[in-house]
Amino acid sequence: VAEVIAVDWGLTSFRAWRLASDGTVQDSVSGPFGIRALADRDFATVLDRAVGVWRPAPVLMCGMIGSRQGWVEAPYVAAPAGLAAIAAALAPVPGIDRVWIVPGVSQDPPDVMRGEETQIVGVAGTLGPGRHVLCLPGTHSKWAVVEDGQVEGFRTAMTGELFGLMRAQSILAPLIPEDAGDDAAAFEAGVARAREEGGLLHHLFGLRAGVLLGRLAPAALPSMLSGLLIGHEIAGLAAETREVHLVGSAALAGHYARALARFGIAATTHGEEAAAHGLFAIAREAGIA
Amino acid sequence: VAEVIAVDWGLTSFRAWRLASDGTVQDSVSGPFGIRALADRDFATVLDRAVGVWRPAPVLMCGMIGSRQGWVEAPYVAAPAGLAAIAAALAPVPGIDRVWIVPGVSQDPPDVMRGEETQIVGVAGTLGPGRHVLCLPGTHSKWAVVEDGQVEGFRTAMTGELFGLMRAQSILAPLIPEDAGDDAAAFEAGVARAREEGGLLHHLFGLRAGVLLGRLAPAALPSMLSGLLIGHEIAGLAAETREVHLVGSAALAGHYARALARFGIAATTHGEEAAAHGLFAIAREAGIA
Repeated sequence: VAEVIAVDWGLTSFRAWRLASDGTVQDSVSGPFGIRALADRDFATVLDRAVGVWRPAPVLMCGMIGSRQGWVEAPYVAAPAGLAAIAAALAPVPGIDRVWIVPGVSQDPPDVMRGEETQIVGVAGTLGPGRHVLCLPGTHSKWAVVEDGQVEGFRTAMTGELFGLMRAQSILAPLIPEDAGDDAAAFEAGVARAREEGGLLHHLFGLRAGVLLGRLAPAALPSMLSGLLIGHEIAGLAAETREVHLVGSAALAGHYARALARFGIAATTHGEEAAAHGLFAIAREAGIA
Repeated sequence: VAEVIAVDWGLTSFRAWRLASDGTVQDSVSGPFGIRALADRDFATVLDRAVGVWRPAPVLMCGMIGSRQGWVEAPYVAAPAGLAAIAAALAPVPGIDRVWIVPGVSQDPPDVMRGEETQIVGVAGTLGPGRHVLCLPGTHSKWAVVEDGQVEGFRTAMTGELFGLMRAQSILAPLIPEDAGDDAAAFEAGVARAREEGGLLHHLFGLRAGVLLGRLAPAALPSMLSGLLIGHEIAGLAAETREVHLVGSAALAGHYARALARFGIAATTHGEEAAAHGLFAIAREAGIA
């Protein structure tokens, strides 16, 4: 029997961990049944199928499951916000025993996160006092400033989403061969280009012109596009930073670490179980675990 | 009978003018049969149907009809390039009497234009000597420096294409009500936002956050998006410029003029018949007209 069941339920994915009373992961399950895939909105059945065998332990969930399109809306907590403020604002799921949803965090100037606050809490517990910059790369990358364990503020960049749109839907798409793979040199060239003048809108078109004029191999286009976008993200949000804590998959964090190095920024990478650690910390703070 | 038939044949549109021996427009025709719509690539039939009654006058065409996906590829002329260099590189269409295609212009660092060089030639003839900055807003906006009638260099921004992708395909799309119209204040706010730090990738996500937090009316989102993108285009490519010649439709040029004013940049707008004037000048230079 679990002490607490931790669930990270996003738009496109579902991950759950069975956590022991000291927070260690005893078991885990994941699948592609993000909330976007659940047209019938039968969240209770999905949850029961995924983690029913671990019940009746309490369940704490984070991510888009707490959004307006999710199961129960868990209103945003305004930054600055730390473990205490987040744990005090859990939204109980009605009609089901001991299931709660972690709120997202908002801030002014307007920005929002939902799910990443839990990963940040998970990592912040390992960082010690002082001021730290965290980057959570993804469809909507988050850059957060954590001070003494509290989220002081954060900013989002639409990097991953723009990469997907450009790669699949833009005038660049038909230029890209199907077998285009990872090209480290092209990625670095993209990062370098992002640091030159002209702006992102101009640099994006340069990929097309480079291919048409035979200066960029079509198979290298996606890697240069990735470097260009990540480079612009860093230039916009972290150019003055000296050290960044990356939270995410090894592959994506590796790309970001290489791009950050081009800006002279050091990077430390934290694993993907940050959400599980954060959910455990919140559950303890809330008295659930 | 026309002296020369001028055709601007792009990806999505076709425009043709019957020009008298002094270059004045005597008649015109246009339609949505851009080269992208012609899956059977039967360009000869489309041309004959559109302008056959004006023949046997010579036909001079510009635009994507001269690209690899077009009728006959007219290789790029490298900038700096003026009327003489462009007129010397016309590509004759084989198998049909007296039909030519104007080449595009390329440059290094890699950039390309096809069709806009002709509009620039058309406007340049009215500007007199000296250095001028021209902006041709659109799906792929062109910024060109013209000196003594010659295209010295140019840069492209993917502004219009990104607007379309963001409005229709991104996470912003479902936020936008169907009846969203033109909102001048939101457009101005977008231009102003583009001048703040953070970068375009961050500012784009701010539109979503603004709506979610009730700080931006959903119906105002497209106008703010437009201002944001045009503002970033100007910040990237024209922040040091003091005066710009806009070439394009009154609606789009009007938006750009308002955005330029926020940067303290004066704008003069030139009409949409720039392509006809440019084609006439090139035809004369080439001895066709």
